[in-house]
Amino acid sequence: MTRQRKRILALTGGVGGAKLCLGLTHCLDADALTFVVNTGDDFEHLGLHICPDLDTLLYTLSDQADPDRGWGRREESWACLETLASLGGESWFRLGDRDLATHLLRTDALARGHSLTEITATLATRLGIEQRILPMSDDPVRTRIATPDGELAFQHYFVRERCAPTVTGFRFEGASAARASPAVLEALADPALAGVLICPSNPFVSIDPILALPALRAALDASPAPVVAVSPIIAGAAIKGPTAKMMEELGVPRTSSAVAAHYGTLLDGFLIDEQDASLAEEIRASGVATEVAPTLMVSLDDRIALARRALDFLDALDHRAAS
Amino acid sequence: MTRQRKRILALTGGVGGAKLCLGLTHCLDADALTFVVNTGDDFEHLGLHICPDLDTLLYTLSDQADPDRGWGRREESWACLETLASLGGESWFRLGDRDLATHLLRTDALARGHSLTEITATLATRLGIEQRILPMSDDPVRTRIATPDGELAFQHYFVRERCAPTVTGFRFEGASAARASPAVLEALADPALAGVLICPSNPFVSIDPILALPALRAALDASPAPVVAVSPIIAGAAIKGPTAKMMEELGVPRTSSAVAAHYGTLLDGFLIDEQDASLAEEIRASGVATEVAPTLMVSLDDRIALARRALDFLDALDHRAAS
Repeated sequence: MTRQRKRILALTGGVGGAKLCLGLTHCLDADALTFVVNTGDDFEHLGLHICPDLDTLLYTLSDQADPDRGWGRREESWACLETLASLGGESWFRLGDRDLATHLLRTDALARGHSLTEITATLATRLGIEQRILPMSDDPVRTRIATPDGELAFQHYFVRERCAPTVTGFRFEGASAARASPAVLEALADPALAGVLICPSNPFVSIDPILALPALRAALDASPAPVVAVSPIIAGAAIKGPTAKMMEELGVPRTSSAVAAHYGTLLDGFLIDEQDASLAEEIRASGVATEVAPTLMVSLDDRIALARRALDFLDALDHRAAS
Repeated sequence: MTRQRKRILALTGGVGGAKLCLGLTHCLDADALTFVVNTGDDFEHLGLHICPDLDTLLYTLSDQADPDRGWGRREESWACLETLASLGGESWFRLGDRDLATHLLRTDALARGHSLTEITATLATRLGIEQRILPMSDDPVRTRIATPDGELAFQHYFVRERCAPTVTGFRFEGASAARASPAVLEALADPALAGVLICPSNPFVSIDPILALPALRAALDASPAPVVAVSPIIAGAAIKGPTAKMMEELGVPRTSSAVAAHYGTLLDGFLIDEQDASLAEEIRASGVATEVAPTLMVSLDDRIALARRALDFLDALDHRAAS
C-alpha cells in the first residue's frame, strides 16, 4: 500500500461530507488524512461561538453524532433549551445540553486568545480523533444568503427559516480578507500530497466558502495533486439539505453535470452516481475525467466503499499525471 | 394593615438571606418589597456571567430552587457539565443544564448592552416574580478572599476550594469606584421607606460588599428608616456557609454579639435567636435594640414567622422614632 505514505486532503462541509470523511478514516492511516472544514456556517448565538460543520465532523468521527437526527450529538438532552424558551430566550437553534459543552469550551478558549485551529485540534484529541481536522481559516468568514427579501445570515436561512426563502445568490462575508489557515496552506504545499477530495457537500454554501479564500484557492491551483469531487446530486436530488432546491432557484439544472461545471477547471476528476451514468460522457467531454459509482451512503460500508472508490480514482489520476 | 402602604428594603446574599426574603413575600404586597442583592460573588466562568446570589433569590422566589441541594434549580440535570468534564473543561463549578439557560440569557443581554438591573428585572418577570430584585450595582464588584497563601477569587475560595483555606481578610475589588444601582438609591431615598432589613446572610462576604458601595452606604446612613439585622449565627454556629469558620479565623468571637458589633452604628435593631437570649442584654448595652426570636428557618412557616417578627420589630422602631 504505497498510499499509506501519501497524504490526502479532503474539503468538507457538514453531514454529507462528514459521511465520506468517516469512510476515509477506514481506508487510510490517520496521519495520511487532513480534513479542511467550512467555517462559513459559523455564527455567534447567545454569546456562543458555534461551528456547525466542524462539530458535525468532530461528532461523526468520534461516533458521537446522532444517527437518526442527522445533526448534533447522540444521547442528547434539551433541558437548557427548554428552560431558555421558558425564559423567553431564542430557541430556534436547537442547542443540546451535551453540544453546549463544545460551544462553551470553544467560546472560552477563543476569548483566551487561542485560535480556532488550536481549539479544534484540542477538541479532536479529547474526542479521540487522530486525523487532522482544520478549519479553513482562523478568521471569520460568514456566508450570507441573498433572497428576494434581502440577505440572511446562513443559520437564519438554514435553521430558523428552514431553507424556505428563495435563494438568489451568496456572499462570503470576510472571505477576501480572511487568511487561509496556515496549516491548510502547508498541507496543500506538502510534496507528499497525493490528492484533494471535494466531499459531496453543498457546492454553494459548504465548498465555495472554502474556495473563496484567495490564498487557499491559489494553493489548490498550484498543487500538482489531482482534485476529485464527489457529486452531491443523485438523479436530480440532493440526499440531504437544500443543494437541489438552490440549483432550481438559481436557474441551474439540478444535475451532476451542473455541479461539475460549477467547479470548472478546479476538477481533475468527478465521481457521479450510477443513476446518473448517462451524464458521464457529457462531463468527460468538458475535459473532466469522470467515474461512476454508487454514491448513496446509507451504511458504514457504503461510506467506506465510496471512500475507496474516490481514493482509487485519485490514485489513478495521480499515476496518469506522473506517467 | 398600614404596612401595606409602606415600603421595606432588604439587603441579602444567597441561600440564608433568600429564605427570609421568601418569608417576606408572604407578609407584604409585592410592590412594598425591594430586595437589594450582593453581586460581589459574581464571576465570569467559561465566558458566562454568573450571579450566584441573584440566581438563588430568583430561583427561591419562583419556587425553582432545589430544596435539598441548597443551590441551583430543582429538577436539574448535568449533561452539559458531564460532557464538559469529558472534554477536559473546568467542571468544579456545578453548572446545571437548566441553570445554564439563565447564564446564557444574562451573558448575551449584557453583551448587547443591557444593564444587570434590566436583565434581572426581565428574568424576574419571566419567572413570575412580582417583587423588585435589584443587583446592588451594575458595575463589577468582585469579592477577593485573603488567605495566608494569597488572594482567591470568591468562587475559587467558596466552591473550588470548598472554603478550606484560612481567611485573613477581604477585599471588594471595584467597590470604591462602582456606582450603586440608581434604583437602589431611589428606593433608599423613598419617603415611603419604612425599614431596611439586613437578612441573615454572611456579614463579611454577602452584606459587606453591598455596604462597601460608598453611595449606597451614605444613602443608608442618611435614611430615617430604621435598620434591623437578623443574626446569621445561632449558638456559635452558622446554619449554612462559612460565617462561623471565618469569624474563628479572623479572631472574632463566633457570637451574635460579634455580628452586632461588626455592623456597628448601622443598626437600629438586632434580632437574635432564642438560643442566644443570654446575649441580648450585652447587645442592648451597646445601644442596639435587640429582640429574641426563633431564627432557624426549616419550613416555609418558619420563614414567614421570622419575616413577621422582623417586620414587627422594624415597625416598632419606626413608631418609636416617630414618637
